[in-house]
Parts: sequence; structure tokens; C-alpha cells
Amino acid sequence: MKHYLADDAALYTDLYQLTMAQGYLFEGNADRTACFDYFFRSNPFGSGYTVFSGLSQVVDLLSNFHFHDGAIDYLSDQGFAAEFLDHLSSLELGLEVNAPPEGELVFPYEPVVRVRGPLLQAQLVESLLLNTLNFSSLIATKASRMRRVAGDRKLIDFGLRRAQGMGALQASRAAYIGGFESTSNVLAGRNAHIPVAGTQAHSWIQSFDDELSAFRAYARQFPDQCILLVDTYDTLNSGIPNAIEVAGELREQGHELVGIRLDSGDLAYLSKKARQMLDDAGFPDVKIAASNQLDEYVIKSLVGEQDAAIDVFGVGTQLVTAYDDAALDGVYKLCEVDGDPRIKISENREKVNFPSAKRVFRLLDDHGQFYGDAIALESEDEVDHIVHPHDPYKDVAVGDLDQQPLLETVIDDGQVIADLHDIEQARDYARRRLQQLPDEHKRFDNPHIYKVGLSDKLNQLRHGTLQQARISRGVDDRG
Amino acid sequence: MKHYLADDAALYTDLYQLTMAQGYLFEGNADRTACFDYFFRSNPFGSGYTVFSGLSQVVDLLSNFHFHDGAIDYLSDQGFAAEFLDHLSSLELGLEVNAPPEGELVFPYEPVVRVRGPLLQAQLVESLLLNTLNFSSLIATKASRMRRVAGDRKLIDFGLRRAQGMGALQASRAAYIGGFESTSNVLAGRNAHIPVAGTQAHSWIQSFDDELSAFRAYARQFPDQCILLVDTYDTLNSGIPNAIEVAGELREQGHELVGIRLDSGDLAYLSKKARQMLDDAGFPDVKIAASNQLDEYVIKSLVGEQDAAIDVFGVGTQLVTAYDDAALDGVYKLCEVDGDPRIKISENREKVNFPSAKRVFRLLDDHGQFYGDAIALESEDEVDHIVHPHDPYKDVAVGDLDQQPLLETVIDDGQVIADLHDIEQARDYARRRLQQLPDEHKRFDNPHIYKVGLSDKLNQLRHGTLQQARISRGVDDRG
Repeated sequence: MKHYLADDAALYTDLYQLTMAQGYLFEGNADRTACFDYFFRSNPFGSGYTVFSGLSQVVDLLSNFHFHDGAIDYLSDQGFAAEFLDHLSSLELGLEVNAPPEGELVFPYEPVVRVRGPLLQAQLVESLLLNTLNFSSLIATKASRMRRVAGDRKLIDFGLRRAQGMGALQASRAAYIGGFESTSNVLAGRNAHIPVAGTQAHSWIQSFDDELSAFRAYARQFPDQCILLVDTYDTLNSGIPNAIEVAGELREQGHELVGIRLDSGDLAYLSKKARQMLDDAGFPDVKIAASNQLDEYVIKSLVGEQDAAIDVFGVGTQLVTAYDDAALDGVYKLCEVDGDPRIKISENREKVNFPSAKRVFRLLDDHGQFYGDAIALESEDEVDHIVHPHDPYKDVAVGDLDQQPLLETVIDDGQVIADLHDIEQARDYARRRLQQLPDEHKRFDNPHIYKVGLSDKLNQLRHGTLQQARISRGVDDRG
Repeated sequence: MKHYLADDAALYTDLYQLTMAQGYLFEGNADRTACFDYFFRSNPFGSGYTVFSGLSQVVDLLSNFHFHDGAIDYLSDQGFAAEFLDHLSSLELGLEVNAPPEGELVFPYEPVVRVRGPLLQAQLVESLLLNTLNFSSLIATKASRMRRVAGDRKLIDFGLRRAQGMGALQASRAAYIGGFESTSNVLAGRNAHIPVAGTQAHSWIQSFDDELSAFRAYARQFPDQCILLVDTYDTLNSGIPNAIEVAGELREQGHELVGIRLDSGDLAYLSKKARQMLDDAGFPDVKIAASNQLDEYVIKSLVGEQDAAIDVFGVGTQLVTAYDDAALDGVYKLCEVDGDPRIKISENREKVNFPSAKRVFRLLDDHGQFYGDAIALESEDEVDHIVHPHDPYKDVAVGDLDQQPLLETVIDDGQVIADLHDIEQARDYARRRLQQLPDEHKRFDNPHIYKVGLSDKLNQLRHGTLQQARISRGVDDRG
């Protein structure tokens, strides 16, 4: 999927990244080797996990990262120095990027993406990386929650009209990775290779003199793909009876009505009534689709009702805007400069970052189920214990668990070297990885917190770096 | 501002629009004259008004609306009929679009945009219009609420990193229209002509051996635009004292420190302390900027504190995602076909639309203040009474008020004929129109509901159309 901003990737950033970049250059620090971590501090929606998504878009943007003449002219107008702009004009990214495959499950505090290379370069890519990964992972996670409760019923993304502008395109792609079957968004479908779906709106019905004429016309035009919207005038007294009449006419002509769609009212009640009416009329195979203000909680409730009869859910606003938690709080923090660990101190223990270049091991039990993740120093090949990231008195032995590296090198010296997951692979991977995550982490309410711990060596380094930073400021670490 | 999706505008739609379009064509209805209303049923955020935004982007997309070969090929793969695709290939939009100027204040239930023309065409533009106007108006409204409580303090959009993907660009533009001064988003700044702003991140500080060295380096590089981020290690014991030291060094060299930025902790408390420390050290003109999880309520609280000392607010996630209400519920409903009024009935009285092509009058009192809006039939030149849209027993005489048409013809027969507001004009217009809106509609909590009423003629037409629709279905209107 070609990214619409590809030619402008270098300007898709916050101004201060460029201001700092000029400063790094003129202070002689541009080529110091920096290591940054992308991570987040909490899963969205109170979820027990996050579905990592957006990597291929980040890689696209990094592959197209050039300051073209138009960009240089604009930055010149903004007062940047000529020498700095010359540097940008000829800049070729030489970064190393480590990340999990798209569709992986990731958890708070672990470095999900590691970017290493010249300080100036690693700084310049922060905003585009955050913007892309935060949003895609947010929506993929939302979609996976809906998939979980929908079971094997179909989920269609109907969100374009209420999506946050062009974010619609990224939302539809991420929703598919999270487990949706299709989207109504034609451009997203074409660009990202997602199946597209959709039938008729109220305006079709209204544009005819009456509902039955509208249904008949639609059946005439699309006899084998006919799904009728039954709530324009009166679902039970007009819409469904008319749909049944048309279903009979289609059958006489050798076709079968595919389905009906409910878009208002009490969907559980109406779907049961509709099922009964369709069954009684001899149409047990006509599907019932429902839409209107659905989210994972409404879907769960609708699926859980006795005699629940909805086969297809069309989900819009709540999916594509992640309505109840409209942002993932991912950050990008400097952890090392020229091999020297760096830390940001905070009044809040949870906001002190983990110094030094790191790696992550996924820990699996005998059944291949996820036990937890270990954050280790890059030099470590395995981990004996993990220590709670914020409570050094909590630790657990993990030496007997299978340990799989979570991050792989995706870009090396500016060149893409990994086979990235395409959208189907990402979707399939997310599905398989969710099967490896124990159910207690998938609960909607108070999910069991997935263990993410530090190796002993990382924990010691963190403690030492923190102490040193405090001593250098004259603050006693015991305080 | 060239829209990134311009070449793909025709595919930026929901699949069912195309499915219906093919049906309209083959049923011989494609060229019936349809009239659609864009309107919403509630202001976002519990606001008393909505700032209309996004019009120029819609006009851009409509001006570029063509089905190029790539689009036709894709639709052919999706099973659309060759004759229909031939029709799309040669399609030139001949629509009429009426809308208020960008920056206008608009209210629930009134037709904000009216689209009229061949049914097939008016149907095809629905999704792009909804996607664009809903999001831009949402963010412009959010921004205007922050502007209201910020008074004359500066507001900067810092939202790119947590924005919903490419929606970031539209968000920054809308935030400026709603009253922000600048954005950190460089690409939005360049494309939409918004001032850009920003200084340094924690990574700048961390990349040096200590905070004072980092501050000195920054001051050396940007002696006249130096704003120092003071919370990397310890705001009161390290950041501010170091900033004061650097302020003194700058002054010796003939420069003045511009400001400091607080990005964590209790911003009210820290800003007062910072102000005192800076004043005591002889730097009363150094500005204090604050960021971190701000929204209109936090800004209001910070501004309202005694001795409040924050001069600049950097607002991110809550602005660009409209976090607490991530979508505006705008819809696009068919109200007339070939001069014949159309209605959609619902169990819910609020969801029954207003039939027929309409216009809107803004009613102003003797002081030029907004009294309310009247929705009238297109043929009406003035309105005597307005009737409550959902309670026919509530009406009020408005014949003595000044009545200004709210909508103007922007596009006629596919040609842009109005001088659209540029971004500065839209921003200025929103500011001036807010001055005309009485304060009771601007309250955050339980704002006074702005009067939007129907003319007698429209009310009668609605009643008659509803009755007729019910009779035609055998439902007694008295039921």
C-alpha cells in the first residue's frame, strides 16, 4: 500500500524535531549513535493486550524519507540555517529498526520498536513513527476485541463517514488485521487489499415511491447479492413482510435473498422477531445483519441473548475512532547515546524509562502458551529471572521457559532486510497469537495483567543509572 | 491546500454508494433530481454550538471527482457492470452545493449543507462529504472551547504523535480555525498555511551529559528563540535553576530567554513557583509554557487559579482526537426527489427528517446577537413564526427579527462559484460569529439550547408527508 504522504514523509513531523536536529548538527552531535525505544504505558480500552500494527506503513515512510526541494524551501522560509538544510537535502537514512512482525501481541513498558543510528536521524523519524504505530495498533486492538465476542459471525467496517478524516484509510486496514472480514471503504479496500462490502442505504428506499418497489428494484438489479434494509418505515410491519415477499419472488426466479439489515431499534428483539418471521415463511438461510452504534460490549450482549439471531455486524464509529479511548499513549524515548545508558527521571516511578539498548524475549510454557515477556539487555541471550518493572521486590524464575526473541531487525543501515507481513499474514498472525494468550488476559473487565519483567542485569543497570543521575544532581538516592 | 486524496476522491466512498448508483442507472433513476441535507443531531462535547469546518476540502475533492482508469479497473474486478463503469468513466459532476462559509456556527437539526442534482451523483458524494465535514467541524469546535477558556494566552497544537493517523493534517487545520495560534505539525503548517511552533524534547536534554550543558547548547544555537524544557530531572531543584542560570548568560550576551516549558507534575503549582523564581531572579518577561494531558477543563482550571502563571498551552491528544467525543454524528439524508418531498420515519420522533429542499435563516436581535435559526422551505423569503422541531406545541414569533440567509450557493452545476474562505478568513469568521453568540450558549455545563425552529409551512409539510407515508402503509396517524 503506497502511503499518500510518502513524498512528504520528512515533513510529517513536529517542528521541534527539526529544531533539535539543527542543534545536534551544529553542536557536533548529529552522528553520535542514539538508541530510542517505542513503547506505551497502558493498553487501550482496559484491554489485557495490544495488537501491534502499522509497521509496514512506517517502513514505507522511512523508505521514502527525503527532504525534497519544496520541503527545503519551506524550512528555509521558517528560518532554518542554510548549512543545516544542505545537510538535510543530501540526507540518506542509515537507521537500524527492530520490531516484532505486524499482528504480534505486545504489552505495556516493553520496547516494541527499537530505533538506532545517528542521533539526528533517529530524532527526525519520531513523529511519523508515533503517529502511525499508535493509531494502527489502537484500532487493530479495538477490532480484535469485537472479533473475540463476535465468534464466527461476520464483522464489517462501516466507519468511513465518522472516521477522523483520512485516518479512515489506516483504520480500515488496522480493523482487518484485528479480525474484521471486510470494509465498506472502497479506497481502503483497493489500496490495502481488503475485501469490500455493502448494499443499500435508506436513500435507496426513499428514492422509490414505496418500500416494496424499492426492494423489488434492488432484487431485480442484484438478484444474487440482495440484502434489504428493512427499517426505513417500520421494521416489523413493513420492512420484513416486504422483504419476505421479495424473497418469494426471487425464489420463483431461481434466486435466494441473501439477507436483511436492521439499522435501528432494539436489535436483539427485532432480530429474534425477524428470524422467526423469515423461518416461518420458509427462508431459514436468509442472514440477518445489524448495524447502528455497535461496540464490543453491545455485540457481546447481542450475541449472548437467548435465541440471538444476528449473523453479521456492521460496525462504524466506535471501531474506527476507538471511541471510548481515542488514542494509544505510545512514546519514543532515548535510552542510549554512544553506548552510554540514558534515563529520564520523573516524580512518578512508572515514568522512569529503562536505560540502554534492549531486547525482549517472549516466554512460553510447555503448551506454547504465553507466560510473560522479559526485557533484557541487548547482550543477553537468555534470562533466568524477571523483576517487576516498578516493584523490585517482585521477581520470578523463568529459566525453564522457552524464550523467543520478540523483535527482529526490519531495517539495517537504512535498507529493509526483513520480509514484512502483508495484511493477510498480519491478520492471520494476530489470530494465531491470540490463541497463545491465556483467556484471563482477554477478559473485558479486569483482565489478568500480563507479566512483563526486567532481567536482573537490566534492573541493576537501571538502578545504577538512576542513582548516578541523582548523585550528579546532588540528590540522595535514599530520599 | 491540495488534498492528498484528490486523485482518488471518487473511490473515497462506501461500497453501497456505488452499488446503489449502478441500481439507479439501470432502473432509469440516475438523473432524477435529488436533494440531500447534511445535518447533525447533537453538538459534540455537550457544547452549545458547532464550528462548521472542512468545506474547502470538500470543494477540493468535488472539483477533482473523476473515476480514473485505475478506479474503473478496480470496480470492474469487484463485479460492477461494464455499462455502469462506462457511465462513471465519463461522469462530470453537475451538482449544486449550498453551505455556510467555513467558520460559521451551526446547530443541531438544521440543514448545514444542501446537495442537489442527479440522484446518482448526489449519492456518490455522500461519504467523502460526511467524512470530511464531520471531523473538521468536530475539531474546530473542540479548539474553540479551549480558546474560550484560554483567553489571550497562546494555544499550540502538539497533537501529531497521538492523532488518528493522517487525520492529523485535517485536525491541525481545524484547530487553527477554531482559534489555535500554531501547530507543531510541520506538514500541516506547510500545506494549510498555519504558523508552526516548537522547541525541544526530553531527548535533547538526555543526549547531553547533564541538563545545564543541554540548556547552554540550546541557548548557543537559538539565542533569540530559546524555550527550555525544565522537567527532565527535577523541575524545581534542577530545571528552573539551570534555566535561570542560562537566562543570565544569555542576557550578558545581549539576548533574552524566551520561555520555559513544564511537561509534567502539578502544572498550576509548578507554574506559580516558576513564576516566582523567574521574577525573583530578574526575569519577569520569561514566558511559562505548559503541556501534558491538557483539555478545555484543565486549561480552565489552570487559568482560574489564583496567581495562575501559564502563558502558553501546548495541547495534544485531547484536541486532535476530540478525545471525550471522538466523532460528530453528522448524517446525509434524502429530502426530495423530482420536487416530491421524502421522509424517513422512525420510532424516534427526533429521527424523522425534514422533507423538501430547505433554506435556513439566522435570526438576529437589535444588537446583532444571534437569537436563533429558522429552517424554512426553499421558496420562503422570510419567516413569521418558528415551531420547535420535535414539539409542535412550542412556537415563537420571529417576524420582527433581522433574518439572514445562512447558506449560500458554493457550487452550481459542478462549478465553484463562491469565494471560499481561506483558513485565516475562516478563523476570523469563527471568532467574530462567536462574539455574536450569547454567552449562555457557550457555557461548558448545560449550555442554554440555541433555538432552531421550523417555519409554519415546513412544519405543515412535514406533518402532511408523515401522515401520507403512514396512510400508504396502512398505519393510522393517530396511533
